[in-house]
Amino acid sequence: MTVRIGVIGTGMIGQDHIRRLTEVVTGTRVTAVFDIDTARAERVAAPVGARALASGREVIEAADVDAVVVTSWGPTHAEHVLGAIAAGKPVFCEKPLATEAADCLKIIEAEQAHGSRLVQVGFMRRYDAGYRQMKEVLASGAIGEPLMVHCAHRNATSGENYTSEMAAQDTAVHEIDVLRWLLDDEIRSVQVVTPRRTRKRPEHLRDPQIMLFETAAGVRIDLEVFVNCQYGYDIQCETVGEDGTVRLPDPAAVAVRSSGTVSTAVLPDWKGRFENAFDTEFREWTRAVAKGAEPTGPSAWDGYAATVITGALVEALESGAIVRVDALEKRPAFYDGERR
Amino acid sequence: MTVRIGVIGTGMIGQDHIRRLTEVVTGTRVTAVFDIDTARAERVAAPVGARALASGREVIEAADVDAVVVTSWGPTHAEHVLGAIAAGKPVFCEKPLATEAADCLKIIEAEQAHGSRLVQVGFMRRYDAGYRQMKEVLASGAIGEPLMVHCAHRNATSGENYTSEMAAQDTAVHEIDVLRWLLDDEIRSVQVVTPRRTRKRPEHLRDPQIMLFETAAGVRIDLEVFVNCQYGYDIQCETVGEDGTVRLPDPAAVAVRSSGTVSTAVLPDWKGRFENAFDTEFREWTRAVAKGAEPTGPSAWDGYAATVITGALVEALESGAIVRVDALEKRPAFYDGERR
Amino acid sequence: MTVRIGVIGTGMIGQDHIRRLTEVVTGTRVTAVFDIDTARAERVAAPVGARALASGREVIEAADVDAVVVTSWGPTHAEHVLGAIAAGKPVFCEKPLATEAADCLKIIEAEQAHGSRLVQVGFMRRYDAGYRQMKEVLASGAIGEPLMVHCAHRNATSGENYTSEMAAQDTAVHEIDVLRWLLDDEIRSVQVVTPRRTRKRPEHLRDPQIMLFETAAGVRIDLEVFVNCQYGYDIQCETVGEDGTVRLPDPAAVAVRSSGTVSTAVLPDWKGRFENAFDTEFREWTRAVAKGAEPTGPSAWDGYAATVITGALVEALESGAIVRVDALEKRPAFYDGERR
Amino acid sequence: MTVRIGVIGTGMIGQDHIRRLTEVVTGTRVTAVFDIDTARAERVAAPVGARALASGREVIEAADVDAVVVTSWGPTHAEHVLGAIAAGKPVFCEKPLATEAADCLKIIEAEQAHGSRLVQVGFMRRYDAGYRQMKEVLASGAIGEPLMVHCAHRNATSGENYTSEMAAQDTAVHEIDVLRWLLDDEIRSVQVVTPRRTRKRPEHLRDPQIMLFETAAGVRIDLEVFVNCQYGYDIQCETVGEDGTVRLPDPAAVAVRSSGTVSTAVLPDWKGRFENAFDTEFREWTRAVAKGAEPTGPSAWDGYAATVITGALVEALESGAIVRVDALEKRPAFYDGERR
Repeated sequence: MTVRIGVIGTGMIGQDHIRRLTEVVTGTRVTAVFDIDTARAERVAAPVGARALASGREVIEAADVDAVVVTSWGPTHAEHVLGAIAAGKPVFCEKPLATEAADCLKIIEAEQAHGSRLVQVGFMRRYDAGYRQMKEVLASGAIGEPLMVHCAHRNATSGENYTSEMAAQDTAVHEIDVLRWLLDDEIRSVQVVTPRRTRKRPEHLRDPQIMLFETAAGVRIDLEVFVNCQYGYDIQCETVGEDGTVRLPDPAAVAVRSSGTVSTAVLPDWKGRFENAFDTEFREWTRAVAKGAEPTGPSAWDGYAATVITGALVEALESGAIVRVDALEKRPAFYDGERR
Repeated sequence: MTVRIGVIGTGMIGQDHIRRLTEVVTGTRVTAVFDIDTARAERVAAPVGARALASGREVIEAADVDAVVVTSWGPTHAEHVLGAIAAGKPVFCEKPLATEAADCLKIIEAEQAHGSRLVQVGFMRRYDAGYRQMKEVLASGAIGEPLMVHCAHRNATSGENYTSEMAAQDTAVHEIDVLRWLLDDEIRSVQVVTPRRTRKRPEHLRDPQIMLFETAAGVRIDLEVFVNCQYGYDIQCETVGEDGTVRLPDPAAVAVRSSGTVSTAVLPDWKGRFENAFDTEFREWTRAVAKGAEPTGPSAWDGYAATVITGALVEALESGAIVRVDALEKRPAFYDGERR
Repeated sequence: MTVRIGVIGTGMIGQDHIRRLTEVVTGTRVTAVFDIDTARAERVAAPVGARALASGREVIEAADVDAVVVTSWGPTHAEHVLGAIAAGKPVFCEKPLATEAADCLKIIEAEQAHGSRLVQVGFMRRYDAGYRQMKEVLASGAIGEPLMVHCAHRNATSGENYTSEMAAQDTAVHEIDVLRWLLDDEIRSVQVVTPRRTRKRPEHLRDPQIMLFETAAGVRIDLEVFVNCQYGYDIQCETVGEDGTVRLPDPAAVAVRSSGTVSTAVLPDWKGRFENAFDTEFREWTRAVAKGAEPTGPSAWDGYAATVITGALVEALESGAIVRVDALEKRPAFYDGERR
Repeated sequence: MTVRIGVIGTGMIGQDHIRRLTEVVTGTRVTAVFDIDTARAERVAAPVGARALASGREVIEAADVDAVVVTSWGPTHAEHVLGAIAAGKPVFCEKPLATEAADCLKIIEAEQAHGSRLVQVGFMRRYDAGYRQMKEVLASGAIGEPLMVHCAHRNATSGENYTSEMAAQDTAVHEIDVLRWLLDDEIRSVQVVTPRRTRKRPEHLRDPQIMLFETAAGVRIDLEVFVNCQYGYDIQCETVGEDGTVRLPDPAAVAVRSSGTVSTAVLPDWKGRFENAFDTEFREWTRAVAKGAEPTGPSAWDGYAATVITGALVEALESGAIVRVDALEKRPAFYDGERR
């Protein structure tokens, strides 16, 4: 059985997922798309044999659409996700699930009313081989109970449109999700510390930032976000437990000895770093859809948590104070089983 | 357009390729299979919606077969490859192209008579990210002209059926192909040096072996083949050039600090090591078939070279002497363009 | 010319320095010692041909003592250092220079009144090859202006007598000194964050702790202090600049492949890690003494800074608040030249 | 007690050892020197308070010389070593012990006639921390019985005076000694394989060379000697055993991330690489002399073995054939105990 997918939003990320669903993942077909830019929607639809429809609602309700992928502008996500739930169709929503926490809660309520999970949020790091190995090491007990996590998220350069708030919303959000999953724990407070700014940034930008988190279990996380580090795209993560530590590897690359150094290349951007994770993410999601099973990836609750926590980070950046995160204390039992 | 594929030979490797063509590579479908064990052929065919036919010839000639994959017993390869050429259909043949050099030559003649390349031989290392990076480094001139290559090919354990000759035919053959491609050079002589045998081997086996090669350009290659190294599957390769060296990385894996050591896992077997290479190999081959283009992977000439060189290694193992390889001096111009 | 040295305090560290001055460093001789435990002083003095004297003052004033090493109990350091300054003799004082900041200031005043530097404080990390390379990289401009430093200081286990305050006073103090030197910058505020405690600690101990520092230039430093990490002694330091980063190496050790892993040993304790640094520290200090030159190592001001900053850390650990460090804003010009 | 040392030969290496015996190693003093260049001898002697004498014999026989260091021109070594034995004084002789095997045998006979070991040959690698760790790993049984060793010895550039024979005599000789010690085994045959020559060499030079050794126990060693590798000084060694492997580390150095790469420096020459080994070598040798104990380092037999094996390599380079080494089969029992 081929899973027929409707895609809402055909910008860069939407196009990349259409390519993925068409050329990389087997057993799927994109049958309908919508974009606010109608011409773009048609340009994207034609080569893969899909129809460009007149609205997100039409895509969701189309008879030849089994599941929906939402890659439109962030503020429109909630509407489309709620529409898919209303239609009883599985929906994969790129981050954020919704830009407002209240909208995330509406989705959570709607999904619970539906009675089974329909929503998966696009946090791909849970599908990265390194993080999965790290989770296995933690589960094995080899390093004991986790106490601290040290992370860095570095991009070579940020665009001009990148704002100080996006350091939380667009960048740190990936660590927030993957660490909640890795530790099977919830974040309870955040703080943002601001080093001297790099001169190699857009004038308005606070860059770098150091974000500090405390979890319910008392684990302390420090996360350096540095989006104009110049030298490349670099993701680091070390979890320190009672008996040892586990650290993500750098991506494998040949080592060259020449001109007085041993050197290996650093990736220029995130594409090479998480390409396999994206592929695995969609492979696993579409397999679940094909079987009629609930998705096993990040849930609506995880999407809500990300929005709440990034909101707290923005507040903490502005105030310089420690901001408590109380909204996540009571996770509905409905979402208890989704962690792996 | 979906590429419809017939598979001849449904043993372990055949089944794995069927899974790959069905679940991993998009745009392909397995429509027909043959195996000498009819029951097995039917068991394998049913779940993927293929028919089990009565002979390899029937598979090759089936109207719904666009291209053929040969994964049968080695001595039967030549017959099926020649059949596919006769039918004018692209054929992917697992190593060896043929167990006898004379049969390889027949294939080369038939393919040239046909007028365009139809044959690709299943040497997957050319599709490994590490070797491809190494080739890029060589092409960039960063380390100058290559002078030496140091390699090791280690397996944790060999089966009881593994013979001393198979160290050349089944194991070293991968390095032989990938190094000829990497260096864009031809092997001219071989020598086999035998260290003391490990006690952790089947009684009859010469293990480890060190194989020494000289190329037309004078590059010297040393290759340790050690198939009962106990500790895991480990592939090492360092090319030394006039200005520097380039070395394959170990597969990326998390580093664990515990109990007085920093450690990373070594893979237990080849599956994890070259899984991505196998996928890329089939993705690129089926894309070429879909476009009606000649394959760009290892050619019939490369398959012939592998058979000739492994034959020389077996002779060198027996004699202890340096064995010259003269049969490869004149590559037909027909095969000049296939290197990348 | 042989430098004749008097040692005040013949406990473990005193004995180790006597061994170093006798067996490792050339051109020096220990001629006089004092210890509150007279029998111990005599036991230590005899084998190296030194005399055990009746007081620290006698050691300082002995005609055959050219320079003094103070390795007595911390609270007695100030008295002996002031005594050496009064006698106009060079003095090497193990950390702390004085347990009270006020006593450090007395030393600073006395030294300035003397007119040239006589005091060196025993922070050996400035003599470690890795930190020195890191300082060279910073000086070269290869990574641009420093913005952040991420550090970890881990010991396998702490003794029962180790207190939560000692995490600052005895452990973090080494990073405090070496980072002030590395960055050529001053610490302006400190904060201590406390993760869940490891169960593998003495009951009373806050372990691990994360210490956060801000420098005058706005550099942010995070330092994990974890003195019961179980797996070994591990010092990590990564400086992040505007154009790149530089990281301390792990100590060189053979890599063993066996039983499914590649592993290298972690050192069990600090001795192996900084043995060469201790030797270089004494070699350079005694060379300066022999030439009648001012010492080039950590100064009385650096000793004062360490006491002030560790005091602020202890306060920050108790209060949980950010503690400003104002006392270091005006370094006397007398101490301007000592940085390298 | 201070060990008083006479040094014969005050060229570059002699001067370096005089500096080491004066400034680095404690408990020693250089009291007398000789050099064929009298002016140089005097220039070197004065600053350390030694006398320049009229001949090597005078140095050996001087009343204030307890032990002799021979760092003169290779062909004169045997004469001075024999002289020291005749005088019953310990003698440290830089490689080679003698340029002719026959002279080595005379030394061996003289030393046995003397009745206890007096001679140590200057192979410093046995004192390198990495090789010592490797020997400990082998002794621990962690990788089982050794089967193969893969080595590389690379220099950035050779001088104009460096000849093809020196690849064996001056370069490979270090690996020959350290591997015989590491494996506690004897070399039985050698072969030299010559890759295409690098264009970055003096015209007359065969560079690189690959040397193949077989030991009495059947261990196979391959050693790449490449003295114009351009990129730096690089020593690699991996021993492969029945259960695993052990590999020398690269020297510890900071890792810099900048401009798209992670890089660490390669040493420019051997000085930085083996400086600590040289220091340890002299520290241990002079300690043994001070105690009146036999030296524990490389013996006259090891010096003889080095001369015999490098001679065989030169023969093998010229002939291209495998050359058997028969002269080392019967080691006198006198030399049985010197291995560690």
